[in-house]
Amino acid sequence: MRVVVPECCEDLKRERGQCLFNKEELTNILDGGPEITEKRRSIEKVLMNTPELFDDVSPDYLSHEDRYSNELRKATQLMTTLEKNGFTYNDAVTTGTGLWLLMDGNPLSLHISMFLNTIKGQSSPQQLQKWLPLAEKFKIIGTYAQTELGHGTFVRGLETTATYDSTTKEFVLHSPTITATKWWPGALGKTSNHAVVMAQLYLGGKCYGPHIFMVQLRDLETHRTLPGIVVGEIGPRLGLNSNDNGFLQFNHHRIPLTNMFMKHSQVTEDGKYVKPLHSKLSYGTMVQTRVGIVYHASRELSRALIIAIRYSAVRHQSEMVPGEPEPQILDYQTQQYKLLPHLASFFALRFSARALLEVFITTSAGLGSGKMNMLPELHALSSGLKAVATNDTVNGIDICRLACGGHGYLSSSNLPRIYTTIAAGITYEGENTVMFLQVARYLIKSFRASSQGQTLPFSVSYLRVQPPSSHAPLMSDRGLVDALGAGVRWMVGEAERRLQQLVDSGHSPHAAWNACSVHLVQCAEAHTRYYICEQFVDAVNKLGETVSSGVHEVLRQLCRLYILHRVIQTAGILLRCGAVDGKALTSIEEEECHLLATLRIQAVSIVDAIDIKDVFLKSTLGAWDGNVYQRIYEEAQKSPLNKSDVTQGYYQYLRPLMKANL
Amino acid sequence: MRVVVPECCEDLKRERGQCLFNKEELTNILDGGPEITEKRRSIEKVLMNTPELFDDVSPDYLSHEDRYSNELRKATQLMTTLEKNGFTYNDAVTTGTGLWLLMDGNPLSLHISMFLNTIKGQSSPQQLQKWLPLAEKFKIIGTYAQTELGHGTFVRGLETTATYDSTTKEFVLHSPTITATKWWPGALGKTSNHAVVMAQLYLGGKCYGPHIFMVQLRDLETHRTLPGIVVGEIGPRLGLNSNDNGFLQFNHHRIPLTNMFMKHSQVTEDGKYVKPLHSKLSYGTMVQTRVGIVYHASRELSRALIIAIRYSAVRHQSEMVPGEPEPQILDYQTQQYKLLPHLASFFALRFSARALLEVFITTSAGLGSGKMNMLPELHALSSGLKAVATNDTVNGIDICRLACGGHGYLSSSNLPRIYTTIAAGITYEGENTVMFLQVARYLIKSFRASSQGQTLPFSVSYLRVQPPSSHAPLMSDRGLVDALGAGVRWMVGEAERRLQQLVDSGHSPHAAWNACSVHLVQCAEAHTRYYICEQFVDAVNKLGETVSSGVHEVLRQLCRLYILHRVIQTAGILLRCGAVDGKALTSIEEEECHLLATLRIQAVSIVDAIDIKDVFLKSTLGAWDGNVYQRIYEEAQKSPLNKSDVTQGYYQYLRPLMKANL
Repeated sequence: MRVVVPECCEDLKRERGQCLFNKEELTNILDGGPEITEKRRSIEKVLMNTPELFDDVSPDYLSHEDRYSNELRKATQLMTTLEKNGFTYNDAVTTGTGLWLLMDGNPLSLHISMFLNTIKGQSSPQQLQKWLPLAEKFKIIGTYAQTELGHGTFVRGLETTATYDSTTKEFVLHSPTITATKWWPGALGKTSNHAVVMAQLYLGGKCYGPHIFMVQLRDLETHRTLPGIVVGEIGPRLGLNSNDNGFLQFNHHRIPLTNMFMKHSQVTEDGKYVKPLHSKLSYGTMVQTRVGIVYHASRELSRALIIAIRYSAVRHQSEMVPGEPEPQILDYQTQQYKLLPHLASFFALRFSARALLEVFITTSAGLGSGKMNMLPELHALSSGLKAVATNDTVNGIDICRLACGGHGYLSSSNLPRIYTTIAAGITYEGENTVMFLQVARYLIKSFRASSQGQTLPFSVSYLRVQPPSSHAPLMSDRGLVDALGAGVRWMVGEAERRLQQLVDSGHSPHAAWNACSVHLVQCAEAHTRYYICEQFVDAVNKLGETVSSGVHEVLRQLCRLYILHRVIQTAGILLRCGAVDGKALTSIEEEECHLLATLRIQAVSIVDAIDIKDVFLKSTLGAWDGNVYQRIYEEAQKSPLNKSDVTQGYYQYLRPLMKANL
Repeated sequence: MRVVVPECCEDLKRERGQCLFNKEELTNILDGGPEITEKRRSIEKVLMNTPELFDDVSPDYLSHEDRYSNELRKATQLMTTLEKNGFTYNDAVTTGTGLWLLMDGNPLSLHISMFLNTIKGQSSPQQLQKWLPLAEKFKIIGTYAQTELGHGTFVRGLETTATYDSTTKEFVLHSPTITATKWWPGALGKTSNHAVVMAQLYLGGKCYGPHIFMVQLRDLETHRTLPGIVVGEIGPRLGLNSNDNGFLQFNHHRIPLTNMFMKHSQVTEDGKYVKPLHSKLSYGTMVQTRVGIVYHASRELSRALIIAIRYSAVRHQSEMVPGEPEPQILDYQTQQYKLLPHLASFFALRFSARALLEVFITTSAGLGSGKMNMLPELHALSSGLKAVATNDTVNGIDICRLACGGHGYLSSSNLPRIYTTIAAGITYEGENTVMFLQVARYLIKSFRASSQGQTLPFSVSYLRVQPPSSHAPLMSDRGLVDALGAGVRWMVGEAERRLQQLVDSGHSPHAAWNACSVHLVQCAEAHTRYYICEQFVDAVNKLGETVSSGVHEVLRQLCRLYILHRVIQTAGILLRCGAVDGKALTSIEEEECHLLATLRIQAVSIVDAIDIKDVFLKSTLGAWDGNVYQRIYEEAQKSPLNKSDVTQGYYQYLRPLMKANL
């Protein structure tokens, strides 16, 4: 494709002229190192040289069928292009680029992610040898079918059964109720000819809980659905309309014994169950998946921020001083307050996800030598981080859209699609409220252990009843993070007290838990946010030794803004537990206002450093050159309704109404 | 259409069996009286007997052009049906029914609302006589074109010019820049042949500010665009994709002098400007329009609540007590906490909008006798209410969607469409941040006036420096509302202090205003919410004398929940100003938890009383009978992708990928 580096408009030129730091250095930090930046750019170059990936219209103009077809076309093209150039789809996902080309869901993404990962992670050696080459070379196309009409995050409630028949050495897959229908898996409706299916394993009449099975769904030549299987697409959704989310029902459908994934649990030919060695092994995958979601969500937030911040520097509106020219809307404090805390949040999520992943990798290396004890903690942290990250990014993207006024509501801004796509993240891979309640369980357990004198793992050590006297002054970063920690400690203590009080007054522990769950969710959220603040401060401190002072100053300011903002949000709690007083809050509020004005000056340069090219940003409002109005106008001309001056609707409906004698 | 009253499922039957109040009585209260309920139902009956209004598919399945055509078909059908049965479209709007049939925007709604209203409110007697019959009988179809590519809420910045040429007695309409392009008006793209156009009036080289003009855009026979005019559709949007939002450019386009609306300002044949008698006259329309938005937004919130609360009573998930059956998710405190405060918010918005409208009507009656002094206050209240209502309903609808888990993301739940439609309300008819800043200006002015000993108008009288010593105990409704009032007083005082401090330290008043604007927005929001709380308490108290005790009890509980929730949200401020202490907050939190459990029992009955029929709810999750899974499943079968087992995409793209040698 023709790559035009356009001259940027005067407003953005001036903004960029104010940059006080080395953008490339910040880009490298965000990517995770110069070599990763380089690799990302080389993938981008390959994709940008593939015109077929860019020659399409807005999915909003197409019918449901055409939309699916068009994205399938690009998805297959993308796979071929990556393969031919020695890249994997995973490369394209990690750098975001792959996802951004498939605008409204990728019918092959479940194949590449969950299907391949399950084969790699859950197969016996024989299974791996058989399935992996087929899947890697797209000889079979698959998805991951877990969620049912009746059950989502609560996996134990799944109803699909896999009953072993030792006479034929087969499993009989069955959907006993309508709610047992598999529902939601991407690519299940029309694309996949195989699925990894989660079902309740039954051996000799006894249920052994959910296990996973490889099931062929469609004929490999004709693509027709096999007998005993009903499969289809589930209809339109808020977003992700091109990845044919599907449904699946089994009518006593038989598959060979060897199609149960047997790396961990096993079933013998005569129907005996062999237990897995470690029950906590699945935690590892979940930690990685959830950290992956945090990366994905923060990347989408960063796209929205680039769009909204560049637009805010180009858009002039209203009067600040009567009679003077209309200012850039980024000059309004209210606009800075909408956008800049989310910019800080993007950095905070990026750094804390990275920190968590590093701990996980270090821990995993030690798994062989029995160091499993950190997994529950990492699981709690990653669950909390998944929930906070998806909440905050969805909210942040929405704010970015609203900060662009009416034009943010235009599809050509790309903000609607970024929102509708990422909005699903609050629910999938563990619904956020459920995630927080799991974190809360870990917190209460830790708090009680600590009360009994036990030593706490690193992420909850601040919960101990006798906190170390912090010597950091309140107004320092560390001092404020300590204050936030004191807030969480107070909240968890209060939750524990209420739980105990309810139990003492005759409630069952389960009823007490439910009666405190609103408060418990708040504890979990506060704990996770404390963790994020800590990681952000640590990361910036550590970077201080290696980066130039310009970059360090920007990171320091963003980190400071994140913490100040969090303290203000938590004011009620912090006042109640005495961690701050009203005077401190007033000065924190005033400092935040100053910091907004300071960061505003370099805001455009900071989002530039996120380094997402126009062709991947896909936004009329956010393009590098800031030529906003011309782009909006030109994009609108492509509407099929503008192909002719008078539409058929006029002749069919409007003219008869005008001529009617009402 | 066949009206089936289905048997409801066991869960909902049990919920309904728990009802302790007279549903019909609550319905009447919400409608505004039994006679309004009756009228609403008679309109509904007429519509439900018009099968053409219901015989369509999901707009999501259609291409952009077909989507527009199909909604235009229904819009013209709707108008004809209403006319023939002696109803106006306004009747159908006030009751919600009309909007709900046009699922993704109505290409005739601007004609019926803004176009007709402008003709009625801004025409000279001659103009009225000429235009009104034409518009009422659909001989001309119009829209209201104010917003431009470059300017929205800041009307003074509009760039379109209307320059009077006294030699020909014509106005020359012109779009001098690309940003002067009219952008966004609904129905402008393809439907309208006329528009009310707002343009800067120029007489003898002098600008007289924005005025409105009647402009014909298209030929009445051929529907072709007239010379000198460029008009088209602006392309897809987050929602409202069927109301052909359009753009419009003028190239020195001439219209007769008599096409300027001349009820208030006038231009004589020789180009002299005649000023309007009252400059505040336009406030009245804005108050009405904004109260209308509050009604509209709260109605949409109520649809989302019906859907989410019924679904939460039908959906069973997870374990509260190990080994026991999965509970209804409405039994989880976290679920109650998500939904019930928004249910209370629906009632709060409904009552406060009604109260404001009543004050407005009373005031308007006195306008002739010079009682204009209340208009600025009503304008401030309606602006604040518009902003709070749209913020809270959009947020509430989103929470309702998320509370339905994955299935809330399905279009067939109707939650996505309710969200995408109503999300626009935050921006249109006055962007919310701008609204709040106008309210803040009124607050600061009032606060300063009060400091100088002046008497304050009713809605801000609580801001006076010496508050009346409230005798209500803190924990009573009145006591808590007083505490909230004290919080607002403190915030406004603090804002005023900071403003003054900045001015004293050398900032210009404008710079100081901007530097405090985040805080000022918070003041305005808090003030408006205080007003809503007050009106809710008053309404419930007044109703206490006339309604049955069952209904009164439910209203009292909803009102209490609303106030408790607000106090908790404002905890930081209330602690800082000493209006509450930590102990009080703890007991308020505990009371809220109890109240959630109490209200939960009648939640389904309360949403039943909102009385929205399935055909208008249009939700697989929210239908009266609670037959959720069957409906989701059946709706999915309608997807065009399910018409054939194997799609074209397989042959075109997937098969080649499978056969490729990668």
